[in-house]
Amino acid sequence: MKISFIGLGHMGAPMARNLLKAGHALTVFDIVKTNVDGLTALGAVAASSPQACAAQGEIVITMLPSSPHVKAVYLGADSILAGAARGVTLIDCSTIDPHSAREVAAMSLAQGNPMADAPVSGGTGGAEAGTLTFMVGGTHEVFERIAPILKHMGKNIVHCGASGTGQVAKICNNMLLGITMIGVAEAMNLGASLGIDPKVLAGIINTSSGRCWSSDTYNPFPGVMENVPAARGYTGGFGADLMLKDLGLAADAARQAKQSVVMGAAAQQLYQMFSAQGFGGKDFSGIINMYRKAP
Amino acid sequence: MKISFIGLGHMGAPMARNLLKAGHALTVFDIVKTNVDGLTALGAVAASSPQACAAQGEIVITMLPSSPHVKAVYLGADSILAGAARGVTLIDCSTIDPHSAREVAAMSLAQGNPMADAPVSGGTGGAEAGTLTFMVGGTHEVFERIAPILKHMGKNIVHCGASGTGQVAKICNNMLLGITMIGVAEAMNLGASLGIDPKVLAGIINTSSGRCWSSDTYNPFPGVMENVPAARGYTGGFGADLMLKDLGLAADAARQAKQSVVMGAAAQQLYQMFSAQGFGGKDFSGIINMYRKAP
Amino acid sequence: MKISFIGLGHMGAPMARNLLKAGHALTVFDIVKTNVDGLTALGAVAASSPQACAAQGEIVITMLPSSPHVKAVYLGADSILAGAARGVTLIDCSTIDPHSAREVAAMSLAQGNPMADAPVSGGTGGAEAGTLTFMVGGTHEVFERIAPILKHMGKNIVHCGASGTGQVAKICNNMLLGITMIGVAEAMNLGASLGIDPKVLAGIINTSSGRCWSSDTYNPFPGVMENVPAARGYTGGFGADLMLKDLGLAADAARQAKQSVVMGAAAQQLYQMFSAQGFGGKDFSGIINMYRKAP
Amino acid sequence: MKISFIGLGHMGAPMARNLLKAGHALTVFDIVKTNVDGLTALGAVAASSPQACAAQGEIVITMLPSSPHVKAVYLGADSILAGAARGVTLIDCSTIDPHSAREVAAMSLAQGNPMADAPVSGGTGGAEAGTLTFMVGGTHEVFERIAPILKHMGKNIVHCGASGTGQVAKICNNMLLGITMIGVAEAMNLGASLGIDPKVLAGIINTSSGRCWSSDTYNPFPGVMENVPAARGYTGGFGADLMLKDLGLAADAARQAKQSVVMGAAAQQLYQMFSAQGFGGKDFSGIINMYRKAP
Repeated sequence: MKISFIGLGHMGAPMARNLLKAGHALTVFDIVKTNVDGLTALGAVAASSPQACAAQGEIVITMLPSSPHVKAVYLGADSILAGAARGVTLIDCSTIDPHSAREVAAMSLAQGNPMADAPVSGGTGGAEAGTLTFMVGGTHEVFERIAPILKHMGKNIVHCGASGTGQVAKICNNMLLGITMIGVAEAMNLGASLGIDPKVLAGIINTSSGRCWSSDTYNPFPGVMENVPAARGYTGGFGADLMLKDLGLAADAARQAKQSVVMGAAAQQLYQMFSAQGFGGKDFSGIINMYRKAP
Repeated sequence: MKISFIGLGHMGAPMARNLLKAGHALTVFDIVKTNVDGLTALGAVAASSPQACAAQGEIVITMLPSSPHVKAVYLGADSILAGAARGVTLIDCSTIDPHSAREVAAMSLAQGNPMADAPVSGGTGGAEAGTLTFMVGGTHEVFERIAPILKHMGKNIVHCGASGTGQVAKICNNMLLGITMIGVAEAMNLGASLGIDPKVLAGIINTSSGRCWSSDTYNPFPGVMENVPAARGYTGGFGADLMLKDLGLAADAARQAKQSVVMGAAAQQLYQMFSAQGFGGKDFSGIINMYRKAP
Repeated sequence: MKISFIGLGHMGAPMARNLLKAGHALTVFDIVKTNVDGLTALGAVAASSPQACAAQGEIVITMLPSSPHVKAVYLGADSILAGAARGVTLIDCSTIDPHSAREVAAMSLAQGNPMADAPVSGGTGGAEAGTLTFMVGGTHEVFERIAPILKHMGKNIVHCGASGTGQVAKICNNMLLGITMIGVAEAMNLGASLGIDPKVLAGIINTSSGRCWSSDTYNPFPGVMENVPAARGYTGGFGADLMLKDLGLAADAARQAKQSVVMGAAAQQLYQMFSAQGFGGKDFSGIINMYRKAP
Repeated sequence: MKISFIGLGHMGAPMARNLLKAGHALTVFDIVKTNVDGLTALGAVAASSPQACAAQGEIVITMLPSSPHVKAVYLGADSILAGAARGVTLIDCSTIDPHSAREVAAMSLAQGNPMADAPVSGGTGGAEAGTLTFMVGGTHEVFERIAPILKHMGKNIVHCGASGTGQVAKICNNMLLGITMIGVAEAMNLGASLGIDPKVLAGIINTSSGRCWSSDTYNPFPGVMENVPAARGYTGGFGADLMLKDLGLAADAARQAKQSVVMGAAAQQLYQMFSAQGFGGKDFSGIINMYRKAP
């Protein structure tokens, strides 16, 4: 299938590569030339603008850093909506606020282009391996049409409901993740301070009611698990600043929905403190160090 | 084996019954006569004081509401230490602060009675069914000695380490549980407010990084799961005031350990608000209602 | 002087009336006709659009509910910038985020219209009495030019610095106000629960290091002060939803500035909870009731 | 008058000196010999135990670090109650939890010794200068009797109500102080990050509704005020660990009173984090540094 792919950063590039591997014909665009070169070297064709790129595809996929980028690339000058043929389906894999996602999708549809929001989880590792989870918001028809394509980039393709609900699922999950990670950091540090062996404590929590992904799969206490950021100085993984971005989206969405999120907001501010102290580039589980006692 | 059992409340009574069923000879004590009657009707022998009760056992088990009760029953007048023969092992199943647990254990040992703290999780349901988890703090020898007896009341018997670590494990797990439950309440309410189907959202969370026991086993959003308190008006289950007690123990222990627990303390104060508004007797997952919008 | 005034709501209308009283010639605009009628009855002239209104003034003043309104009225179709003569000074008294304020001011200046942000404090009472405080962001020249006019509507006219700093001052002050009010609510409730006479406690706080405006001028505990919302069922005053709006602006600005505001965010979420429970229209000091024990 | 004074630390020593200066005959006790020497050099007489000390006084005054010390010195072996003559009035100036204060007072009264709790504010500076504030809990008669003596050590002698209310006033005021200080730290940092001059911002806050002692008398932002800890590297003043102690007393009292203190608990945990990071000995206003951005 002829696919247009716009946004070839750390996530977008490996996703596009997986589409090439699956035999699709790719036209690509990115404002950074070296990002484009990486794909054309593998057989993709470069386009000169989002408009020109979108004009080549039966499907358009975007992976962009934030809501203003999405609006500019879809709605601005030389934009996707200016280039895409009527009926072409648009898929935005960026993580942005649900309100903007719905706005752009409505404007796309008004012009004859059904659109889905399809933010991902799984990080760059999942993007490389083609094991991402896609949380898709859009009509049943759109979901049916795009699921086989997303399958070339991911393992779990979940239909969350109407337009915007992919973003809702993503930010709700990640807000909860931000909260549970700090909860685990506090519980593990408290236990260690009180004299229990951290591995034993993690073992008990992981078979009890405190059990959560942040404890049983990504434990932030050093020495408890192998192959997690805590085992390698909190490098790699999911950066604290990325978590901070998602908590910001959740806080914004909560405000628009007039929904209180006391713990979500506390988590956001604690990650902000951690980031401001100079650790925004560390894995988000490194926040456990903010709770450590000075030697 | 001849076992002395002191404290026959909602948890203690079914635990004692399971020991009777397993064929042990029980001497029991409780300050509430009807509690005692329930056990003597099944073959236990009533004693007139903790001292008299302890004097009959090769093992003494206690299940009491709080630290002052434990101190009084072990160390006060007519107390266990006044009655227990040298060498008899003492097991306290109450949930109390680790500091007090260690204090009482040290005094018991000084008098020739090895002691273990062995708080439980699993609630009255687990106590009835004999499927409790026991978190045991004490020496290896004590653990080996008491594990077979605890097996008659529980399914998982975990050795957490030295004296007091059973309590540490319990309060760390429950602090984390208190945090994750509010996190799930916020995330589910936020998602529902933003238009995603709560069952779909729970499904996504439960297979993603926000996954936790509070979401996949005990989801607080009504209609998402069956056979949880949310499905029956937040009755039964683990009362908010009991969660509040455990969060208080965690906060105290954190203070003594000079360990910050920002999220743990926030959870404590939110449950306190919920309780003060009149809902301390509801299941702790009912805190989701504090976040609901007025109709 | 010929003044154009746009936005005649609860705050704008009395402000405009004070300018009329001071002898200025007013051209006014509001999308609500009855708001306009209230001013034309006193001698103001109605204009048909922001553009038409701005075209009549030597000075243009706006008082609008939020940032999108400000952008629309200044930059949209039929807008102020389309109508104002080159050199006319623009004053926006709305409370909006500093970033938007700076954006609009920069665009105005680029077109030859110096602009100041001049949000107010003092509420409708201060607007009626002409005793508002104006926090002005703009050049020294602009401040010198507009201060005499603002004096007809307010008592304290403070130059905060360059463009946007008026908004910064307003949201920092109000974030702190939101925090101190909840702090006073907690301290007063705690004291009363512990058996001290609330009036005595307030008296001590007000002469000690806990002293603050929320305690000594606007105490939320009923019976402590007269002539405050707490003395009349939390009616009148500064609505919880208005406080919530300002805390939202502060949280947004903090995010853009990468500045952690743990207490500010907690205050925001508590007011959001209070509002969601149905009390957004009550004075913000009514949040003390969320902490009250059920009878 | 013959006064017994027990506890000659940083606060107690200057208080006792002021009593000597006022012409009272002092018998003193402290477990640290050099503390005692400092007073005997000025004319006080040393006693060998609290009991012996109390036996010499018409009034007994204590200034001790915490509740267990108070209980030991009043109720233990060689204690005040063992030494004080019937009818002698006892004054405890320590800051402890209201519950313990009431307990000790009740036991003293039962033995014929009326007692007052009279915690102070004003720090070592106020103790030296004799300008402390005394918050007195006790009967009207006791207050009348002791006020003239307290006047030799302080400026404001406030009767807060019955036994324990002195402690209640102290911890409620200090909890609010802990909250407002962090609030000011966040507001000042936010403003500075957003480009307003910190002195200008403080000036606006100090004449507006955000006004509080933490801003107008003890501003934590460096360069805003002279003669405050922020002007000298956060040395001197009121140590973060002392604030942490008072917030702990407030949290405890809140738990006993079943009163939610969300902001108070957040403040406690933030000071705990600050202390654990190695800054417990710094003035409490130094917490503003925890919010600073890494260079």
